[in-house]
Amino acid sequence: MAGKESVIVHGMWASPYSKRVELALKVKGIPYEYVEEDFKNKTPELLKYNPVHKKIPVFVHNGKPIAESLVILEYIEEVWKDCPQLLPNDPYEKAQVRFWVDFINQKFTDIMMTIIKTKGEVQEKALSQVHELIKVLDEGIKIFFPDGNPTFEVKNLGLLDIIASTVFCSFSATEEVIGAKIIDPEKTPLLYSWVKALGEHPLVMDIIVPHEKLVSILGPWRQSFINPPPSQT
Amino acid sequence: MAGKESVIVHGMWASPYSKRVELALKVKGIPYEYVEEDFKNKTPELLKYNPVHKKIPVFVHNGKPIAESLVILEYIEEVWKDCPQLLPNDPYEKAQVRFWVDFINQKFTDIMMTIIKTKGEVQEKALSQVHELIKVLDEGIKIFFPDGNPTFEVKNLGLLDIIASTVFCSFSATEEVIGAKIIDPEKTPLLYSWVKALGEHPLVMDIIVPHEKLVSILGPWRQSFINPPPSQT
Repeated sequence: MAGKESVIVHGMWASPYSKRVELALKVKGIPYEYVEEDFKNKTPELLKYNPVHKKIPVFVHNGKPIAESLVILEYIEEVWKDCPQLLPNDPYEKAQVRFWVDFINQKFTDIMMTIIKTKGEVQEKALSQVHELIKVLDEGIKIFFPDGNPTFEVKNLGLLDIIASTVFCSFSATEEVIGAKIIDPEKTPLLYSWVKALGEHPLVMDIIVPHEKLVSILGPWRQSFINPPPSQT
Repeated sequence: MAGKESVIVHGMWASPYSKRVELALKVKGIPYEYVEEDFKNKTPELLKYNPVHKKIPVFVHNGKPIAESLVILEYIEEVWKDCPQLLPNDPYEKAQVRFWVDFINQKFTDIMMTIIKTKGEVQEKALSQVHELIKVLDEGIKIFFPDGNPTFEVKNLGLLDIIASTVFCSFSATEEVIGAKIIDPEKTPLLYSWVKALGEHPLVMDIIVPHEKLVSILGPWRQSFINPPPSQT
């Protein structure tokens, strides 16, 4: 596309959902304006642009709004073609990427919340469920790394890398806060190496919340659930 | 595409998820083989082709399996191009379709189960939630019917029509079984007319479970939850 584009992202600094939109724009080299939203005091623009869900991310291209992160990413891929692609051309390979994107998108959010907000048996059960999911994923992503090595000599991050970065690169902070391993390098070596490589990619490093900052926020947040102040018990 | 194609759908006769794959194939005029699955005794092929979710629908094209209905529909749209299209060409219009497809896909399944399986206050609360969703949808789909008339002179059903048919055309059976209105023609006239028109479309009529058959199944099923036999209480 040519000419002056207006590209705006409404997001929140800690949200994996708006981070994935920003990361896709960075992969494609598309300049954008970023509007930080406060979930307790959303801008009138956010409410106007996403009256259905009233949530970030909202993507506004030349005045036209789109909501829902995966819908936005497909749109970005279709509109900006003369730059790195997020999806393979082959329809079957594309379907495989979309299948695993959907898996990561659906399966990890709620269970990770449970892990952070609980202790004892409830947490152990959730941890064991997430370990099962991670094993399934470790097996599943083999199709994308036929030689078993996810070392990133790739020039561009694709859609699956983008979703995986914004979901899994925060897991090390969760591991530190709960004191347990989530992605085990011995049991799920491929997923471990992939996430490690993603976390070292310059564009990902530029976009994700730094480990120490995330630990400093997740720690007290977890405590507010497992050891709430007396007035809340 | 040319040449001899092998197209197989693994589905279940009452599932909206496999119905939508079948309907898309019928819209495009693609012949396919159908394998009915029994959820208590799944075929080895289903388990081999969808080891992650072990669920229908599974779509197998020339030996290559794809799972997850929306991933399958996007694949069908991309592979078979020389026939009716399911999505508009314009990326923004496509994003609008995908947004509402996602809305219908996400929002109605669980709540409709609650409505069928409960009574009294729990059911009333669920009904009121579904009425809210339906109001949002009735407002939202106005963009697709600028003249306010969803009379189907359209030649082809699109992706949103396919998802809406397989979700909403069963609502009249639910209404009869629970004895309450879900899609009210006065409060949500556009959605009501759209669903009515979809239900009268020949391809939809060919694919959905007939009203009387659905009522005869849903009725006893509902009773098994709200008036379970004494041994289960």
